[in-house]
Amino acid sequence: MKKFNVAVIGASGIVGKELLLLLEKFPIKNIKLFGSKNKNIIFKNKKIKIKKLYKKDLNKNFDFIFFIAGSKISKTFIPHVNKKNTFIIDLSSHFRLKKNIPLIIPEINFKEIFISLKNKKQKLIASPNCTATIMLMALFPLKDLKIKRIIASTYQAASGGGKKLLEKLEKDTFENNDKDPFSYNFNLFLHNSPLNKNKYCQEEVKIEKEIKKILKDNSIKISVTSVRVPVKRCHSISLNVEFEKRFSIKKIFTLLQKFPNITVLDQKFATPLLAQKKQNIFISRIRKDISNKNTLEMFIVGDQLLKGAALNAFQIAEKLSTKFL
Amino acid sequence: MKKFNVAVIGASGIVGKELLLLLEKFPIKNIKLFGSKNKNIIFKNKKIKIKKLYKKDLNKNFDFIFFIAGSKISKTFIPHVNKKNTFIIDLSSHFRLKKNIPLIIPEINFKEIFISLKNKKQKLIASPNCTATIMLMALFPLKDLKIKRIIASTYQAASGGGKKLLEKLEKDTFENNDKDPFSYNFNLFLHNSPLNKNKYCQEEVKIEKEIKKILKDNSIKISVTSVRVPVKRCHSISLNVEFEKRFSIKKIFTLLQKFPNITVLDQKFATPLLAQKKQNIFISRIRKDISNKNTLEMFIVGDQLLKGAALNAFQIAEKLSTKFL
Repeated sequence: MKKFNVAVIGASGIVGKELLLLLEKFPIKNIKLFGSKNKNIIFKNKKIKIKKLYKKDLNKNFDFIFFIAGSKISKTFIPHVNKKNTFIIDLSSHFRLKKNIPLIIPEINFKEIFISLKNKKQKLIASPNCTATIMLMALFPLKDLKIKRIIASTYQAASGGGKKLLEKLEKDTFENNDKDPFSYNFNLFLHNSPLNKNKYCQEEVKIEKEIKKILKDNSIKISVTSVRVPVKRCHSISLNVEFEKRFSIKKIFTLLQKFPNITVLDQKFATPLLAQKKQNIFISRIRKDISNKNTLEMFIVGDQLLKGAALNAFQIAEKLSTKFL
Repeated sequence: MKKFNVAVIGASGIVGKELLLLLEKFPIKNIKLFGSKNKNIIFKNKKIKIKKLYKKDLNKNFDFIFFIAGSKISKTFIPHVNKKNTFIIDLSSHFRLKKNIPLIIPEINFKEIFISLKNKKQKLIASPNCTATIMLMALFPLKDLKIKRIIASTYQAASGGGKKLLEKLEKDTFENNDKDPFSYNFNLFLHNSPLNKNKYCQEEVKIEKEIKKILKDNSIKISVTSVRVPVKRCHSISLNVEFEKRFSIKKIFTLLQKFPNITVLDQKFATPLLAQKKQNIFISRIRKDISNKNTLEMFIVGDQLLKGAALNAFQIAEKLSTKFL
């Protein structure tokens, strides 16, 4: 069995930690970990030192480099990866919307990697925004009904804001900090990204644009409201989808159930604690919207750290490793 | 100044407590408190005993009786109030949708009390569902734009489920109970009321029907998704409203700002901690929905225990007392 050389940039963050757990089951020859903290991490029972990243580090013969250190690091370092055979899997938003960069959810559009990367100097693959990924797992199976309009209100977990926000959630809660209206103590607030001229925040725009790119349909109308809730690591989305075609609820169940890595709940309601640490996306409250024809209501929950981030990136590498290396 | 005889049925609950705080500033001659717990309550520095309610208690000469003990108690006891001059203010859902029972938000439709109660044997007034009330405070000022369709996803506080649910939130959180997927430990779940044949829950149907009744328009299309979030006492609603008429955002601001008891936020985001213990409803994230014409997005927050319940009932009594007694 072939084994691989792997590097993880941003190994000390919370997504990095989840990715390393997944990589324990990956056929690895050698692994290098980079990050801001100069500490040791246990990987497959061995201590591995996390090192500061320099440009020259990137030009070893890596089969896979995962970038999980944010847009700035991806923007600065990815252009310096000059080995043609290295698959770069970028979890940041920096390259996601660039033309010719494949934006991949393996269950949906894995094949595009090869169309997009043919004859390219770099094998760069972007992994989408966490909320967009979780939503797309429910939207893509219904694509043949022709999606016209999507209205989404999100219930996003602290983990999406990284270790800092996750720690703030616990600190504010257990210290009962309720003087500050933006404390996280049993409180919720707007996703903390700037508003554009239409008064949509950056996160909402990312979700809109990435959905259009992955569904390859710019005519879909999308309006998202992104809200942070006091939940640790699962994002939920209340999703209203209008289709061009008529459908029956039975048809929706069939389409969703035959799609991989989805759990469809009928009487039960999907909760963040139910979906936590699970690889599947949970879809519940499936019903026809009584306010409009050909429209569906759903409530979707997925682990932000897994399918929303580390797992999706891992699945890209796994599929590449078994199929094409 | 005229003083009033008041009874509160359900004085020991969390809404009862808020109502008593408000009633401290009400011109009271005599107050009687009823409830399930045989305990004392301090009201205006005096100890008052909470008593078990018997039917005969209801026929003293009360000016106001507040029913805050749930639908069952309202259903059982209200028919036995036989003094024609007693204003019965019912916070339960039991009578809300009955024809000829006025369903009142004082800022919106106070006058209907007199139209509906003319020549009636009982002066029974219903106070609406907490989420419906908070939503209506944002919807009613925009009524002249002709509301066509409302899509709402809620972020409802524990207080809506009473003292028990509020205590469960703290207990589950501080004991870190995350084995049960319906634990309230940094978790959210469907509003805990049964689903109808269209798979909408009772709470969602209440909100839909009460909005139609108060706006006096059965042609409005409404779809609600009710979700409980780990927040203590403020409900939030992500609200998408389609109008028949065109509007400018400036016009929306003007209409909302001139309406009483609303705080409109432009750059700031309304949070539950900001709205907590405030009488006003906070409206933020006001923007045109980029996915549809003549459609508005808003994020609304209000204190469930105040405008959602005790304050609305109190305002009904206050307005009746100054205007018509």
